[in-house]
Amino acid sequence: MNVTIWNENLHEQKSEKVRELHPKGIHGTIAAILEEEGHVCTLATLDMEEHGLTEEVLANTDVLLWWGHIGHRLVSDEIVERVYNRVQEGMGLIVLHSGHHSKIFKKLMGTTCNLKWRHGARERIWTIKPSHPIAAGVEDGFLLECEEMYGEAFDIPNPEDVIFMGWFNGGEVFRSGCTWTRGNGKIFYFQPGHETDSAYKNPNVRQIIKNTVKWACPTVRGAIPVMKFEPLEK
Amino acid sequence: MNVTIWNENLHEQKSEKVRELHPKGIHGTIAAILEEEGHVCTLATLDMEEHGLTEEVLANTDVLLWWGHIGHRLVSDEIVERVYNRVQEGMGLIVLHSGHHSKIFKKLMGTTCNLKWRHGARERIWTIKPSHPIAAGVEDGFLLECEEMYGEAFDIPNPEDVIFMGWFNGGEVFRSGCTWTRGNGKIFYFQPGHETDSAYKNPNVRQIIKNTVKWACPTVRGAIPVMKFEPLEK
Amino acid sequence: MNVTIWNENLHEQKSEKVRELHPKGIHGTIAAILEEEGHVCTLATLDMEEHGLTEEVLANTDVLLWWGHIGHRLVSDEIVERVYNRVQEGMGLIVLHSGHHSKIFKKLMGTTCNLKWRHGARERIWTIKPSHPIAAGVEDGFLLECEEMYGEAFDIPNPEDVIFMGWFNGGEVFRSGCTWTRGNGKIFYFQPGHETDSAYKNPNVRQIIKNTVKWACPTVRGAIPVMKFEPLEK
Amino acid sequence: MNVTIWNENLHEQKSEKVRELHPKGIHGTIAAILEEEGHVCTLATLDMEEHGLTEEVLANTDVLLWWGHIGHRLVSDEIVERVYNRVQEGMGLIVLHSGHHSKIFKKLMGTTCNLKWRHGARERIWTIKPSHPIAAGVEDGFLLECEEMYGEAFDIPNPEDVIFMGWFNGGEVFRSGCTWTRGNGKIFYFQPGHETDSAYKNPNVRQIIKNTVKWACPTVRGAIPVMKFEPLEK
Repeated sequence: MNVTIWNENLHEQKSEKVRELHPKGIHGTIAAILEEEGHVCTLATLDMEEHGLTEEVLANTDVLLWWGHIGHRLVSDEIVERVYNRVQEGMGLIVLHSGHHSKIFKKLMGTTCNLKWRHGARERIWTIKPSHPIAAGVEDGFLLECEEMYGEAFDIPNPEDVIFMGWFNGGEVFRSGCTWTRGNGKIFYFQPGHETDSAYKNPNVRQIIKNTVKWACPTVRGAIPVMKFEPLEK
Repeated sequence: MNVTIWNENLHEQKSEKVRELHPKGIHGTIAAILEEEGHVCTLATLDMEEHGLTEEVLANTDVLLWWGHIGHRLVSDEIVERVYNRVQEGMGLIVLHSGHHSKIFKKLMGTTCNLKWRHGARERIWTIKPSHPIAAGVEDGFLLECEEMYGEAFDIPNPEDVIFMGWFNGGEVFRSGCTWTRGNGKIFYFQPGHETDSAYKNPNVRQIIKNTVKWACPTVRGAIPVMKFEPLEK
Repeated sequence: MNVTIWNENLHEQKSEKVRELHPKGIHGTIAAILEEEGHVCTLATLDMEEHGLTEEVLANTDVLLWWGHIGHRLVSDEIVERVYNRVQEGMGLIVLHSGHHSKIFKKLMGTTCNLKWRHGARERIWTIKPSHPIAAGVEDGFLLECEEMYGEAFDIPNPEDVIFMGWFNGGEVFRSGCTWTRGNGKIFYFQPGHETDSAYKNPNVRQIIKNTVKWACPTVRGAIPVMKFEPLEK
Repeated sequence: MNVTIWNENLHEQKSEKVRELHPKGIHGTIAAILEEEGHVCTLATLDMEEHGLTEEVLANTDVLLWWGHIGHRLVSDEIVERVYNRVQEGMGLIVLHSGHHSKIFKKLMGTTCNLKWRHGARERIWTIKPSHPIAAGVEDGFLLECEEMYGEAFDIPNPEDVIFMGWFNGGEVFRSGCTWTRGNGKIFYFQPGHETDSAYKNPNVRQIIKNTVKWACPTVRGAIPVMKFEPLEK
C-alpha cells in the first residue's frame, strides 16, 4: 500500500511553537505514526512543484492524507481536480482538522463545510460506532487537553458513518470522525490535529490514523464509467 | 390527524414533585403542547384496559407518542406486538426520553438501545440538520438547565437523520433527536423529558414535539405485503 | 411557494417530434403538471439573459426544477455557482432525467454521476419506499412503454432515500428516484423524462413531480454559517 | 477467524434434486466455498441439539452464515435470542436467500421483511457499489440463469450500503445485497441461493460469500453497555 501525506507546511515556517511540536513538519509527525505500521510514506507540500502531487505520485497513491489551513486558496485548481479524479478512481482520502475548508473536501462534499470554531478548548472524543474498523483498538472515550473547538452545525452531507463525536468544554459538540464514499474512493474526516496542539501524540488518535489508512485502501482501480450499453436481453 | 399519547403514568403516583410538574400526568403535559396546534389527543395509560391501546384506538391513530420508564416490563407483549404491527402499517411513533429502553423501541430498532446515564445535568441541545421539518422554527442551540444525562455510545442502528445532538456538563455527548423508518412507519426518538425536569416547558422542545407529529403522520395505509407474483414480462 | 422551472430548451429547436410532444417546451410540459396544483411557475431557459436565473429570480425561488442535456457545457459557471449557493441556503432542487450530468448536479454530488445508457427501452418503475412523501399516491409499480435506459452502476453518493427503482427490458436496473440534502437544500433526482418520450403524461410521474415540489420546499432560509464562537460554558 | 454455517437442512431430506445439488447439504456447499479460503467451518443444523448453536459454539463464532426457509417456525425462540445477543456483541451475520423471513433476521431488522416472490426466473445481478470490500473482485454485472425471483418493495430498514441490485426477467428488481450494523455486529443479506438452483456454483457468488466473511469479522468483543456514569467534568 502506498501512502502520501500532503501538508501545506506553512505554519511551520511562521511559528516556533509549531516547529517545536513538529520538527519535521506536520507531515513528518503523521509519517512517524504510519511508519510504526511499516508504511513508507511519500511526503508532499504546497511549495513543491505541482504541490508534490504529480500525475505519477497520485497514480501510485492508494491513500492520501491532507493537512491544510491558511493555504487553502493557494492550492491550484488543477491539482485539486487531479486529486478529485483520483478519489473517483478509488484513492482513499483522509482529511485532517482544518482541511474541512480545503478546496478538495468542499468539492467532494458539495456543501460549505462551515462550522463554529475557537482556539483552545478541552475536548473529549467519544467512540459512537465501536464496531467500525476505524475504531478498532480505540477507547470508548478519551481526552485531548487542548484542541481547537469545532462545533455544530457542521455543514456536511449525512455521513455514511459517524464514528466519533466530540465534546468541548465551552458547551459545543461535533461529529469528529465521519466517512463518505465518492466515486470509488473512501473518505474520512477527522477533526483533531490543530497545529499548536499535540493531538497526534495521543495514543487513540495515533491508532485512528493507522486504522484509517487500512480502511481507505482501495479494492478497485478506476472510476465508474459512462457507457452506451447494448441490451443483454431481447 | 389522530394523535394518541401513551404514558405509563407511574412516577405521577409516587412522587409529589412529578405531580406538581405534571398535574394532569406527563401525558397531560404533552397533550397541552399539541392542543396548541388544534390536536385533540387520545390519552392512554398502563393501568387502562389493554393499556388504553385497543385495536380500535390504534387503528384510528396516525401518530403515537410514548413515554415510559419504570414500567417497561409491565407492558404486555401482546400490546407491544399490536403497536409494532401498526408502525409497519404506517403509524408514526415518537419515543420520548426513557422510552429508549421500552419493549416497542428495542423491538423496532433491533439493538439493545443501551447508553450511559446520570440524574441531573445541564444540557445544551444543538440543531445539526436545520433543514429537517422537525427542526422548523427551532433555535440553532438551546439550554435545558436540568435534564437527565444520556451519553454515547448509544446502541442504535445508524439513524436516517440525526437532527439534534446533546452536550452535557459532565463531559458527555448524545444523539438526542434521531429518525428511522420501519415498515411504512416513521419513528422519532427524542432524548429530553425526564419526569422531574421541565424540558416540556422549553419553547424549543415544544416546537419539536409539534413538528414531530406533523412529520410522522402517514401518507400510506397498510404494511408492505408478502405476495406470490405473476411475471409482468414474458 | 415559488417554483421555477429551468430547461435548456434546445431539443425543442431541433426536433419536430420534441415540439409535438412539448408544444410549450419541456418547461411548459412540466409547468402544466404543477399548475394543476395551483402553482404559478417561473420559466427560465438557457437562451435568456443569465439563463433566466437572475439573483432576483433565484432569491424568490423555493424549488427549482432542472431539465438539461445537450447544453450542459453552455451553462455559465457563474450561474451554476449561484444556484449552488441558493441550494446551500435551502432552495429545493429537482434534477430531471439527463440532468444527472449537469454541472450543478455533479457539483452538488461530488461524483461523476456516470451511468450506462441507451435510447429506447421499456421501463418499469417500482416504489421501494412507499412511506416517503414523494411516493404519496403513487402505485406500487408502473410501466413506461418507452423511456431512455439508464443503468447501474450509477456513480452517486449513497442517497438518503432511494424511493424508486427502475427495471429495463434490456436487463438493467437503476436507482430512479433518490434524495440528498446539501447545506439546507433538499435535492431529488428523478430518472424518467426523455425528450422524445411521454413520461410526463404518465399519471404516476405527474404525481411524483407534484409531490416532489411540496417535499423540497424549504422550512429555513440561509446557509449554515462559519463563525468564531465564544464559549457558553466556563 | 471462526466461521459457523447454519442450515435448516430440511429440503435436503425431501428432494432428490436438492440432494444432487448439495450432496453434503446446503451447509456443505457453502463450507466448500469458504474452505477455498482456508476456513475450517463449524456446521450446525436444525435437528442438532440446540440447533447446533450452543453457548459454546456461538461464543467461539466470529461470523455466522444462515440458510433457512420452510423451518423458520421450528427454530426455538431461545436460540434466536442467543444468536441475537451474539450479534449485539459483535458476531457477524450473513443471511442468505430465504433467510429474509427467518426469526433472527426479522428481529434484527424490526420490519416484516416482506417481498414479492416467484419460483424460477432469470436474474442479472449488478454491482452498484464496487468500492465496497464485499464487491472486491466481483464483476460489474453477472447472470444467474435460474434463481428465485424476489421483488421490491422489500420491507427492510434503509440499508447502510446497497452493494448489489437484482434484475429479473419477469419485470422485477431487488436490493440483492445489503448491509446493516446492529449493536456491534455487521449484517449482510444476500438474495441468491435457492435450494434447487446453482447460484453457489457461480464464481461471482462464491467471491461474494468469501468477501462477506472477511468483512463481517468483528474487531470488538462485547455489546455496548448500559451504565450509570460519573461526571468526568466538574
